[in-house]
Amino acid sequence: MSKLTDVPKRILIGRALRSDRLGETLLPKRIALPVFASDPLSSVAYAPGEVLLVLSIAGVSAYHFSPWIALAVVVLMFTVVASYRQNVHAYPSGGGDYEVANTNLGPKAGLTVASALLVDYVLTVAVSISSGIENLGSAVPFVVEHKVFCASAVIVLLTLMNLRGVRESGKLFAIPTYVFVAGVFLMIVWGAFRGLVLGDTMRAPTADLEINPEHQGLAGFALVFLLLRAFSSGCAALTGVEAISNGVPAFRKPKSRNAATTLSMMGLLAVTMFCGIIFLATATKVRMAENPAADLVRDGVAVGSDYVQNPVISQVAAAVFGEGTFPFVVLAAATALVLFLAANTAYNGFPLLGSILAQDRYLPRQLHTRGDRLAFSNGIVLLAGAAMLLVIIYGADSTRLIQLYIVGVFVSFTLSQTGMVRHWNRHLATEKDPARRRHMVRSRAINAFGAFFTGLVLVVVLLTKFTHGAWVALLGMVIFYATMTAIRRHYDRVAEEIAAPAEPTDDSLRPSRVHSVVLVSKLHRPTLRALAYAKLMRSDSLEALSVNVDPAETKALQEEWQRRGIAVPLKVLDSPYREITRPIVEYVKSLRRESPRDVVSVIIPEYVVGHWYEHLLHNQSALRLKGRLLFSPGVMVTSVPYQLESSEVARKRARRRQEWSAPGAVRRGPAEHARKGGGEG
Amino acid sequence: MSKLTDVPKRILIGRALRSDRLGETLLPKRIALPVFASDPLSSVAYAPGEVLLVLSIAGVSAYHFSPWIALAVVVLMFTVVASYRQNVHAYPSGGGDYEVANTNLGPKAGLTVASALLVDYVLTVAVSISSGIENLGSAVPFVVEHKVFCASAVIVLLTLMNLRGVRESGKLFAIPTYVFVAGVFLMIVWGAFRGLVLGDTMRAPTADLEINPEHQGLAGFALVFLLLRAFSSGCAALTGVEAISNGVPAFRKPKSRNAATTLSMMGLLAVTMFCGIIFLATATKVRMAENPAADLVRDGVAVGSDYVQNPVISQVAAAVFGEGTFPFVVLAAATALVLFLAANTAYNGFPLLGSILAQDRYLPRQLHTRGDRLAFSNGIVLLAGAAMLLVIIYGADSTRLIQLYIVGVFVSFTLSQTGMVRHWNRHLATEKDPARRRHMVRSRAINAFGAFFTGLVLVVVLLTKFTHGAWVALLGMVIFYATMTAIRRHYDRVAEEIAAPAEPTDDSLRPSRVHSVVLVSKLHRPTLRALAYAKLMRSDSLEALSVNVDPAETKALQEEWQRRGIAVPLKVLDSPYREITRPIVEYVKSLRRESPRDVVSVIIPEYVVGHWYEHLLHNQSALRLKGRLLFSPGVMVTSVPYQLESSEVARKRARRRQEWSAPGAVRRGPAEHARKGGGEG
Repeated sequence: MSKLTDVPKRILIGRALRSDRLGETLLPKRIALPVFASDPLSSVAYAPGEVLLVLSIAGVSAYHFSPWIALAVVVLMFTVVASYRQNVHAYPSGGGDYEVANTNLGPKAGLTVASALLVDYVLTVAVSISSGIENLGSAVPFVVEHKVFCASAVIVLLTLMNLRGVRESGKLFAIPTYVFVAGVFLMIVWGAFRGLVLGDTMRAPTADLEINPEHQGLAGFALVFLLLRAFSSGCAALTGVEAISNGVPAFRKPKSRNAATTLSMMGLLAVTMFCGIIFLATATKVRMAENPAADLVRDGVAVGSDYVQNPVISQVAAAVFGEGTFPFVVLAAATALVLFLAANTAYNGFPLLGSILAQDRYLPRQLHTRGDRLAFSNGIVLLAGAAMLLVIIYGADSTRLIQLYIVGVFVSFTLSQTGMVRHWNRHLATEKDPARRRHMVRSRAINAFGAFFTGLVLVVVLLTKFTHGAWVALLGMVIFYATMTAIRRHYDRVAEEIAAPAEPTDDSLRPSRVHSVVLVSKLHRPTLRALAYAKLMRSDSLEALSVNVDPAETKALQEEWQRRGIAVPLKVLDSPYREITRPIVEYVKSLRRESPRDVVSVIIPEYVVGHWYEHLLHNQSALRLKGRLLFSPGVMVTSVPYQLESSEVARKRARRRQEWSAPGAVRRGPAEHARKGGGEG
Repeated sequence: MSKLTDVPKRILIGRALRSDRLGETLLPKRIALPVFASDPLSSVAYAPGEVLLVLSIAGVSAYHFSPWIALAVVVLMFTVVASYRQNVHAYPSGGGDYEVANTNLGPKAGLTVASALLVDYVLTVAVSISSGIENLGSAVPFVVEHKVFCASAVIVLLTLMNLRGVRESGKLFAIPTYVFVAGVFLMIVWGAFRGLVLGDTMRAPTADLEINPEHQGLAGFALVFLLLRAFSSGCAALTGVEAISNGVPAFRKPKSRNAATTLSMMGLLAVTMFCGIIFLATATKVRMAENPAADLVRDGVAVGSDYVQNPVISQVAAAVFGEGTFPFVVLAAATALVLFLAANTAYNGFPLLGSILAQDRYLPRQLHTRGDRLAFSNGIVLLAGAAMLLVIIYGADSTRLIQLYIVGVFVSFTLSQTGMVRHWNRHLATEKDPARRRHMVRSRAINAFGAFFTGLVLVVVLLTKFTHGAWVALLGMVIFYATMTAIRRHYDRVAEEIAAPAEPTDDSLRPSRVHSVVLVSKLHRPTLRALAYAKLMRSDSLEALSVNVDPAETKALQEEWQRRGIAVPLKVLDSPYREITRPIVEYVKSLRRESPRDVVSVIIPEYVVGHWYEHLLHNQSALRLKGRLLFSPGVMVTSVPYQLESSEVARKRARRRQEWSAPGAVRRGPAEHARKGGGEG
C-alpha cells in the first residue's frame, strides 16, 4: 500500500498511469466507459435543446412532436451501437472507421472518412467547449457574458495542458463523468417522482414565455422538413459513439467482448438520459427558440438581445432542483467538466488518427513515430487554432456550431458501415462453417441496416443543414482531402524516384576512392578532434582546408600548423570578398571535376551548445556550408561534434523530452498490439 | 559605347556597379560627395527650424539670437571637419570612430562609440524619414495628414529594397543630392537678390502669426540655458559628418587627400545652406513654436490642434518662390528624396559596423562574412523595427525625435577625437623627423580642440536635452553595450574552453578504431549510395542498422537484404513504442561503453529536396536523430545526400543567393583594402 498522502494525487492523476510506461495498463470496463463515453454522453447536454429549438420555429404546439423525434434518435442510436458492436468484433486491432473504409472500400473512401474525422475533431473541441461555457454560464453569469473570451481561454488551457504532455488518466475521466451521469439520473428520477407521485407542478424558468412562431401553421412538406431538421439536430447525441471502435486494444481481455459491452452500456445510458431530459423539458414547459431575442415573448414583449437562453439541461435542473440549489450547481459544474473532457478527447484522437494517416503516407511520416513531440505539438496547435477560429467566428454559440458538426459524423458512420458489409461479403465468400456463416450473415444484416439508416440520416442532414453551416464542414473536408492527396502523391513520386534498381548496378560506375577534406578555421580542440577522427577513417587522401578571410589570422594558423608538426597538409583558399561558403563549394566542385569517380568527404568540426541563443553565435557558417555542399552529388558531409560545457543543459533537456509520452495514450492501448495490419474477424 | 536604350537604366542603376563585382569601382569625388553627404546635407532641412523653434519659447524677440547660434554651429562644423580631416589622413583604412576609439582608448571606449553609432543609425532612419514626410507634406497635404502611416510605409519600402539587395548606386545618390543643393542655393541667391537688390518684401506663410511665449522676458541663467538648448538643436546639422571617415577605401587615389577634400566641401556646403536658410527665415519672418497649437496665435486666437507647422525650408521656399510654384514643388520633392536617401545610408552603415563588431566578437561571427544574406537581413530587420517603433511612439514628429538624436553623435565625436589625441601622442613618442613631428603636433592640436569642443557640446546636449528624450537614446546605448559585452564574454569563455593544449596530448588517449554504422529504413537508392560510400571509407568495422517500427516492413527489408546479397551485416533494433531516436542513441551509447576508445561513425542517408514544404515531409527524424547523437562524445555523424530531382530548384536558388551582394557596397570600397588592421598614419 502506498502512503496516505499519495491518495489525493492518485485520485487526480492515477498512479498506475504515471509510473508505468505506456502500454502496460489496460482499462477495466468501469474506467473504459468514462474514458470513451465522455464525448457521446456529454452530447445529451445540448442535443435535446437543439430538438426543441428547431421545433419552436413552428410554434410551441410543435413541441408535441418531440417524443417522436426522441424515439427516432433512440432507434438510430441502437442501430449505430449494434453496428459498431460488429466493428469491434471484426477489428479487435482498433481499426477505426478510417481503416474499415480504407480496407474494404478503397483508399478514396478511407481518405474521405479521415477528412470527415479530422473536421469532426475540430468541431468536437469547438462545440463541446462552447456548450460547456453555456452550461457553466447558467450557474456563473460572468462566464456567459464573456462567452467567446472564456471559451478561448478554455481552449488555450487545454492546448497548453496537452502540449506539456499531461497524461490522460482513466480516473481523471471517471469522476466527472460518473457525477454527471448520476446527476442526470437523479434529476430524471426526482423529477418523475415529484411530478408523477407527489403531483408537484414544476415549472422551468422559461415556462412563462410564449413563442412567436416564425412559420404559423406549418403543414405538409414544410412540416416534414422541419421535423427532419429537428431530428438532424437530435442526431448530435450520436457524436463520438465510434470512439470505442478505435480503442479496442486498450480494453482488458476479452477485448472485443468488453468493448462491445461498454458500447451497449454507453448507448443505453445516452438514450435514457436523452429521453429523460426531453420528457422533463416538455413536462416543465421549457421554452427555447432559434432566435430567442425576437421569438421569445414575455407579456407580449420580445425578450430582446440581452436575453440569455440557458441550455435545456440547466433549465430542467432549475425546475426539478430549484435554481441555485446545491444539486443544480453541482450538475452545472459536472456538465461543463464533462464537456471539457469531451473536447480533450479530440486532442488525443487527432494525433492518433494523424499517426495512422502518416503510416499510409497521407501525412508527414514523422507523425507516425510515437512520442515525436514536435509533430504532436504541430497537430495540437493546428487543432486548437482551427477550433478557436470557429469559436470566434460563431461567437461560441453551440447552436450555430452544431449545424456544422453532424455531417462529418454521418459521413464516417455511413462509409464505415458500408465497408463492414463488404467485409462480411468478403469473408462469406470463403467461410464454410455454417454456424460462423450464420453469424456473419446476421452481422452483415445489422451493418447493412446501419449503413442504410445512417446514409439516410446523412442525406437528411445534408438537405436540412447545408445552408445552415454544413457547407463549412464539407469545405473543411475537401481541404483536408486535397492536402492529404497531395502529400501522398509527393511521397509516391519520391518513392518511385529513389526505388532501388532491380539488379545491382554495374560496378564500374561505383565510386572508387575517397578524398577527405577537414575544414579548419583555428587550431583549437574541436579542430584537433576532427583531424584525429579524419585520420582514423583512412580515406585515400586527406587534407585540411582553410579560407583566408583575414591574412593575419591565416598566417598565425599556418605557423602554428608547422610548429605543432601536424602531418596533414594544410591548403588555404583565398577569399577576396571575405566569403566562406563559395570558395569551399567551388574547391570541392573542382575536386569532383578532376576525378569524377572519387567521393569527397568534407569533415566539419562543430560546436554543440546548450542554449538557443548560443546557436545564433556558433555554427552558422558550418550549417550554411553543409546545406550548400549537400547539393553536389558525390559529396558526403561529416560533423565531428565538440561538446561545450553548456551542451550538458541541452542533453538533459533532450533526455527529458524523450521521456515524454504523448497524451491520449490511455485510449490507444499498448503499442505492440496496435495496427498489426488490416482486421481479421 | 552601350546602346541608347541602356541610358535610362544606367542613370537609374549605374551600369558599372551592376555588372562589375564589388570592389572594382572606386568613387570620384563628384560621386563620393553625394554618397557620403546626403546625411549631413539633408539635416539642413530640419536643423534651422529646430533652432527657431527653441528660441520661440522666449517669444519672437529671441529670434534675434539666431545669427549667433548659427555662428556657433558654423564654428563647431569647421572644428569637426578639421578634426575628421586628421582622421582620414591617419586612418586611410577606413577605421571609423569605433576603430579610432578602440585602438587608442581601449575596448570599453570602442564599445561605447559602437553603441552610440548603432543607436544613431536607428535615429537617422526615424528622423530623416519623419522629416522627409513633413517636407513632402508641405507640397502634398495628404502625406502630412497620415504622417505615421506614410513614414512607416517609407520604412517598409526601404527595408524591402535593402532586403532584396538593391545595390547602392553612386549616380542614384548624385541626382537628388545635387538637385537639392542647387535648389537651396538658388533659393538663397534668389531670396537675397529679391530682398537686397529688388527690395521685395517676402513674407513666409506664418509671418502673420504671433508667438505666445511660454516664458516671458527670460534673462540671466534661464536665457543662457535656452540659448544652449537652441544651439544643441542646431547641432543636428552635424549628424553624419563622420561617415566619410569610414569610407576612405572607397575613394580614388590619393584616397586620404580626396576624402579630406570631399569632407571640406561637404562642410562648406552644409554651413552655407544652414546659415542661408536661417537668414532667409529671419528675413521672411518665419514663425515656429514648440507647441504650435497653443503658442501660435492668429488674430488673437490660438491656431489649434489642426494647424500643421511646415518645415522652415518649405516656408522659406514659399516666401521666395511662392507656394505651389514649380521650384517650390521641386525643392520639396528633392528635400524629401535626399532625406530618404539619408535614411538609406543607415541601412548600409548598420551592417558594415556590424561586420566590424563581429570581427571583434562583439556580435555573432557570421555577421563578419560578407554577403551573408541571412545575417544582413537580421540586421536590416532589427534596424527597421526599432526605427518603426520610434516613429510610431513619437508620431513621426521630427522635432520630438531630434531630441534623442544628437547625444549619440556627440558621444562618438568626443571619444573619436580624444582617441586621435592619444594616437598622435603615441606617434610623437617615436617620431624623430622634425617636419613630420611639426605636422603631428598641429594635427594633435586640431583634434584636441575638436575633442574639447565636441565634449563641451555633449555636456550641453545632455544638460539641455536629457529630460526631452536624450535618456531614451542613452538607454538604447546601454542595451547595445550590455548585449555586446555579453556576447564577447561568451565567445571568450568558449575560446578558453576549446583552446588547444600547448603540447600535443598523450597519444594513448587518442581514439584507436572506427566503428561505422549505416542507418537503413528501406532499401532504396539513397541507402545504397550511403552503403557504397561507407564501404569506401574503410573503417575498422561496418554494419547496417535498422529500427523495427513495423514488423512487416522490417521483414521485407531483411529479405531484400539477403536477396541482394549485401555484404554488410544488418542489425535490427526493436522498438516497442515505435520510436526511432531512442533505440539508435542507446545502441550507439552501448557501443561506446563496450569500447570507449573507439569512435562511432553514424552514416545517415539524407534526401535533398527543393521546396520548403518538402522539408516538412522528409528528413525530420534524421535531423532530430543527428541533434541527439551530437551530444555523445566520440560519435561523428555523416550525411550522405541523395539529390531528388526537385533539389535542382534549391540549388539554383542557393546559387542566386550567393551571387547576391549586400547593399552599401559602394561606400565600403574594395574588401581587400578594408580592415587590414589598426590604423597606421
